[in-house]
Amino acid sequence: MAVKIITVSRQFGSGGRTIGKRVAEELGFDYYDREIIDHVAGETGFSRDYVAANSEYAPGKSIFSYSFEAAGTPGVMNGMTTADYLYSVQRRKIIEAAESGKPCVIVGRCADYILKEFDGVFNVFIYADVEWRAKRIVEVYGDTDVKPIKRITDKDKKRAANYRHYTDREWGRAQNYDLCLNTGFLGIDRCVDMIKDIALNK
Amino acid sequence: MAVKIITVSRQFGSGGRTIGKRVAEELGFDYYDREIIDHVAGETGFSRDYVAANSEYAPGKSIFSYSFEAAGTPGVMNGMTTADYLYSVQRRKIIEAAESGKPCVIVGRCADYILKEFDGVFNVFIYADVEWRAKRIVEVYGDTDVKPIKRITDKDKKRAANYRHYTDREWGRAQNYDLCLNTGFLGIDRCVDMIKDIALNK
Repeated sequence: MAVKIITVSRQFGSGGRTIGKRVAEELGFDYYDREIIDHVAGETGFSRDYVAANSEYAPGKSIFSYSFEAAGTPGVMNGMTTADYLYSVQRRKIIEAAESGKPCVIVGRCADYILKEFDGVFNVFIYADVEWRAKRIVEVYGDTDVKPIKRITDKDKKRAANYRHYTDREWGRAQNYDLCLNTGFLGIDRCVDMIKDIALNK
Repeated sequence: MAVKIITVSRQFGSGGRTIGKRVAEELGFDYYDREIIDHVAGETGFSRDYVAANSEYAPGKSIFSYSFEAAGTPGVMNGMTTADYLYSVQRRKIIEAAESGKPCVIVGRCADYILKEFDGVFNVFIYADVEWRAKRIVEVYGDTDVKPIKRITDKDKKRAANYRHYTDREWGRAQNYDLCLNTGFLGIDRCVDMIKDIALNK
């Protein structure tokens, strides 16, 4: 069974996005990451920044989650929380990408779970030690007022909660994926090569 | 940093032992698996079968766990449960293997955790879907009165409990390892090659 879709789940700062992008470029696959944010922003009327900040982070099920509707689309949320609404739109986009039949790489957004009934899907998880990631996020994204390790643990917690909420699975449990790579140990270049090699020779 | 020790943690039926053995043979590394059982049996006076059945399965902390001592070594258990005693002997053996400086592959027995302060250790986790493993254990070990899926879930539960008890970590969480391989997706041959390639070119 040839690989048609590669999903890349990743810990913050692990290099997962970089790996996903390089794999897509080098294999000539379509690439979905911020493209999904653009689509969801366009569909829902929420700003790109709002979607980016909220589309991978689980709903706080507070009353405020229900208290407004997307500016451009009155009525469509239909009782859903904002997070559930964003999830449903990005889920549709991911399924549409898969159904198009064009090979692609999809980063994050529970794509491994959403596409679990599809054939030809190869699910990868990218992670690394907190110390390695802390060093890397300062190099890649620069410093902020919040200490790197706190930025990492906050994002990891939110992604794990989001994944658990929508999939009922534990984020980062090896068994959810076909291959899990520690970039701190293996290096980003080798991870790119390993994923490409499997995709090309499955 | 060259790889000197490869630890292979594995789900029951995943092919982890086969992979560990082949990697050791093909790299010319020492191999520790049943060898540890032999050592522990020799050291403690417990039978080989008793050690095999109990050395990777967490202590039921019942009063019976404390109620007898190893036949050949009166007094040495010193208030430990049988499981803790077996663990302490196999832990010493694993550290002794690592300290010998001879490259080796060690299968199971929390070796990834026991050797976490050692340099040149490469930790691998091998797993697969339950259905794939159920088919494989019947092919490799034959049928028994207990259904394959029940044999698998029982063993997995025990290994997870054992690992949690001695390491305070979750078994099968990707972040405990450097590489996690789904043999059902990747195939055993490819897993052997990937591990060897990393060990030789790290």
